[in-house]
Amino acid sequence: MQFPKEIQNLNELLNNLPGVGPKLSSRLAIYLAVNGKSLSVRLSQSLKDAVENIKTCELCANVTNNTLCSICEDAERDRSVILVVEDALDLINIESSGEYKGLYHVLNGLISPMNGIGPSDIRIQELLSRLSEKVEEVILALNPNIEGDATGLFIKQRVEDANLSTKITRLAKGIPSGGDIEFASNQTIVDSMRARVGI
Amino acid sequence: MQFPKEIQNLNELLNNLPGVGPKLSSRLAIYLAVNGKSLSVRLSQSLKDAVENIKTCELCANVTNNTLCSICEDAERDRSVILVVEDALDLINIESSGEYKGLYHVLNGLISPMNGIGPSDIRIQELLSRLSEKVEEVILALNPNIEGDATGLFIKQRVEDANLSTKITRLAKGIPSGGDIEFASNQTIVDSMRARVGI
Repeated sequence: MQFPKEIQNLNELLNNLPGVGPKLSSRLAIYLAVNGKSLSVRLSQSLKDAVENIKTCELCANVTNNTLCSICEDAERDRSVILVVEDALDLINIESSGEYKGLYHVLNGLISPMNGIGPSDIRIQELLSRLSEKVEEVILALNPNIEGDATGLFIKQRVEDANLSTKITRLAKGIPSGGDIEFASNQTIVDSMRARVGI
Repeated sequence: MQFPKEIQNLNELLNNLPGVGPKLSSRLAIYLAVNGKSLSVRLSQSLKDAVENIKTCELCANVTNNTLCSICEDAERDRSVILVVEDALDLINIESSGEYKGLYHVLNGLISPMNGIGPSDIRIQELLSRLSEKVEEVILALNPNIEGDATGLFIKQRVEDANLSTKITRLAKGIPSGGDIEFASNQTIVDSMRARVGI
């Protein structure tokens, strides 16, 4: 037996979503087509609204339904610091910590020669053009892996090449708070040892 | 910072889907609103199509875009056996095994007094009205838990009350093929011991 074509189609589209495998997509397709019809109607409209109205901030590339995002427009934010993230999801997570009050810059990717992504494919030039004397610090909040480290080093190099005095920092590496040393990777142990601090 | 309202709305709706938690829903909402716009357009339309065209089979309640589902309409299927499932997802999984060639009956739920679901809330009456001399066997393929067992016993009782000679069977309980005895629950061990077979 085949699914009716409407459910097959829904299933295929859902299966293309990040984090949605074939089991979940068929479950969702049937739910949306049979039991969750009123949710489907609202979801269909909501997708249309998002497609029509969501764009990326002209300055930092955060998500917005305006020319600038709510952070770039906020006069209270500290304009002397720019925190660099890979994508808007990382931004949201950092923002939800409540710790950071400066501006952001979304790169929309990381340098990854293996995947054919070079420096000009992500928003590094846009970052450099935002740096002036007023920006005292650029905080790199990139995933601590090969791509994140390579992208960070490239940005540091370009800032130095441009004779900018902006300080470049990155988030500390170490044991995650609430995490378990038993399950920490070797590299995490090494990083946290080297960066140990007095108490 | 708040998400723009279009993304917030999308996020809330996606979070209502079965199997989609808050982390996945916000990831999907941003993906659909920013990087996956063309997928969003197709998904929006596909949801509309499914809502408009998908209904349940008048006989077995399987999903269909017709009055009867493709299984009930298939003249090749063995009409002397009806396999009873909780929902259409279970039906699809059994169907994909290729083992079964009879008809189905979808209950749309299981008896669950804890959740206020009684026999009249699921499609038991519709099952009984399908039983005639032509139906030789009803196979219960219900999850082996309290609700599934209670629903199965109730169906068996009602068939006996109606003086129908239909044979009632259920799927075997035991160690899952490819599974690991090390991780089998106590009840699974007990069930598989009691139902052991000669080799």
